Amino acid sequence: MSRSIDLAVIPGDGIGQEVVAQGLKVLNAVLPQDVKLETKEYDLGAQRWHRTGDTLPDAELEALKSHDAILLGAIGDPSVPSGVLERGLLLKLRFAFDHFINLRPSKLFPNTATPLAGRPDIDFVVVREGTEGPYTGNGGSLRTGTPAEVATEVSVNTAYGVERVVRDAFERAAARPRKKLTLVHKNNVLVYAGHLWKNTFDRVAAEYPQVSTDYLHVDAATIFFVTQPERFDVIVTDNLFGDILTDLAAAVTGGIGLAASGNINPTGAFPSMFEPVHGSAPDIAGQGKADPTATILSVALLLRHLGYDTEAARIEDAVSADLAERDGVTARTTDEIGDALAVRV
Amino acid sequence: MSRSIDLAVIPGDGIGQEVVAQGLKVLNAVLPQDVKLETKEYDLGAQRWHRTGDTLPDAELEALKSHDAILLGAIGDPSVPSGVLERGLLLKLRFAFDHFINLRPSKLFPNTATPLAGRPDIDFVVVREGTEGPYTGNGGSLRTGTPAEVATEVSVNTAYGVERVVRDAFERAAARPRKKLTLVHKNNVLVYAGHLWKNTFDRVAAEYPQVSTDYLHVDAATIFFVTQPERFDVIVTDNLFGDILTDLAAAVTGGIGLAASGNINPTGAFPSMFEPVHGSAPDIAGQGKADPTATILSVALLLRHLGYDTEAARIEDAVSADLAERDGVTARTTDEIGDALAVRV
Ligand SMILES: CC(C)[C@H](C(=O)O)[C@@H](O)C(=O)O
Ligand SMILES: CC(C)[C@H](C(=O)O)[C@@H](O)C(=O)O
Repeated sequence: MSRSIDLAVIPGDGIGQEVVAQGLKVLNAVLPQDVKLETKEYDLGAQRWHRTGDTLPDAELEALKSHDAILLGAIGDPSVPSGVLERGLLLKLRFAFDHFINLRPSKLFPNTATPLAGRPDIDFVVVREGTEGPYTGNGGSLRTGTPAEVATEVSVNTAYGVERVVRDAFERAAARPRKKLTLVHKNNVLVYAGHLWKNTFDRVAAEYPQVSTDYLHVDAATIFFVTQPERFDVIVTDNLFGDILTDLAAAVTGGIGLAASGNINPTGAFPSMFEPVHGSAPDIAGQGKADPTATILSVALLLRHLGYDTEAARIEDAVSADLAERDGVTARTTDEIGDALAVRV
Repeated sequence: MSRSIDLAVIPGDGIGQEVVAQGLKVLNAVLPQDVKLETKEYDLGAQRWHRTGDTLPDAELEALKSHDAILLGAIGDPSVPSGVLERGLLLKLRFAFDHFINLRPSKLFPNTATPLAGRPDIDFVVVREGTEGPYTGNGGSLRTGTPAEVATEVSVNTAYGVERVVRDAFERAAARPRKKLTLVHKNNVLVYAGHLWKNTFDRVAAEYPQVSTDYLHVDAATIFFVTQPERFDVIVTDNLFGDILTDLAAAVTGGIGLAASGNINPTGAFPSMFEPVHGSAPDIAGQGKADPTATILSVALLLRHLGYDTEAARIEDAVSADLAERDGVTARTTDEIGDALAVRV
């Protein structure tokens, strides 16, 4: 049997290049001999925008569709106005490829620095909705720049969109040992969206009697993230709440340098995209200081998505062993961390 | 000179009664002899709703207007559908009395349990907008309960509303030793509201050259709340982001049992309302287990709002001394904590 992976690579800006190189190094090391890996690099991000004014032209969006998956480093630079690359590239991809599952696992690996006293046992995954909520770009402003300006942002939630992410989260919860799913929303204030989310959640829950469920308001959830993170197993939530909670989750589990994510379309209609949660960190770009672990863990998510479960687990085990054995004093370069993990897998 | 305070008291539900009693005890103890304190209790909350179906009738809303300030305990009970009391009472008051400043100080007092390792030096205040954003109740749902449902929530932001809270925050920052103000928003995604907030902030900043400023996305802000909370002095933010951030702030500064808040209308057109950030905690209601400190600190905010700065400081100093000297082992009753603080002021 001959197998192959046709991968699109968007290194992007800042440390993106460096961390993606290590991700590919580990991917090459972990793949069985018989799997043919083809990669195609796409030049997208701040430099491209400065040069041509393009964020994501139609031709490239079309070309990206043909790949099995996408690996992205980081996008963004202070020289580009806020929102241009986020809306024009990152979110455009998530929406165009209908990445309705934004998957973000959080695990406190051994020997990593958490700001939390007592090192709680943290191992949960946030299933963040990726195509609706306040991220749809609906809204506008009237009398812009005048003292009479009104600016709106519309959170759009559909039964179609909420049900598919809730179902996915129940499936994931059912497949985990603890089988627990928490819905996070703010249904005491955002009553319209909140009712849709809560009713859908309760209805689907009836089909999964083996999964225990609970509900938390987003404000209360942040409290538990720092006082009792071990209570969480799988969390399902809206696009914006998921954005906020997963940065906090990354912070309590050793930092954004370890946080991986997948923008997944489980139907396979479009390629899914995997990227570290961190940004392009222009202040440390090109210095070999960036931790590529988040990208390497994103490669593990990518492999699992494509059905390479064994290889995904080997990467995660390698990261776990690597973190456990490092001395935590000597700083390692981006390259050294990539090499160490490539050897271990 | 004869002075007086005419106070409306809404004890509310669950532990609300117990904590408000201690708040009034300390208020009585701290006020100079010549200040006449009059209180009038309003029966509002879950029990009233069950009995009569009322959340906040017009007559009572009208009557509340005549007071100098309002002290509220807690509102809410699991027996009431989510949203009914929040929208019908709590938020109705904030909107009717135009409480555009939602003031929430966060301070890590000595000898209190923080989940953060290393006990960072935390002393900041969040100025949360209180009358706009996603809290306006704009939105709706279409084809409710069907597979074709669409539910929306509209965040409404006006130059009028944003400028007044931003100005208030600059004033507060200018009056503090560190003179630093951070704007928190998500202007890379919520571009319409984000631009209004950021442009207003930058414009007003020019009038306060003595205040140093920065900007953080809300997701990044949560990271700094746990990794570097000492970097914050004053934070100004939108209604929903403020809701989320202040619960997290309470969690890292020793818990929701210490978090005070003021819903303030600085123009004096309507009475301001002071309340602990915590909820009604029906699970421990009536057992004398609730910590009244958050309510007592809310009384300090109330006094400062009414111009009793010395008395406010005496309460805050008493709380600080009380926490520093308690043994942290013996649990104290609600009453004992109230007594201890009443003696100290
Ligand atoms: C860069 C930004 C558009 C993005 C988001 O808000 O989703 C980022 O914060 C993330 O979490 O992936
Ligand atoms: C109870 C709820 C309406 C309220 C809010 O969201 O503002 C609460 O969480 C708060 O922070 O005061």
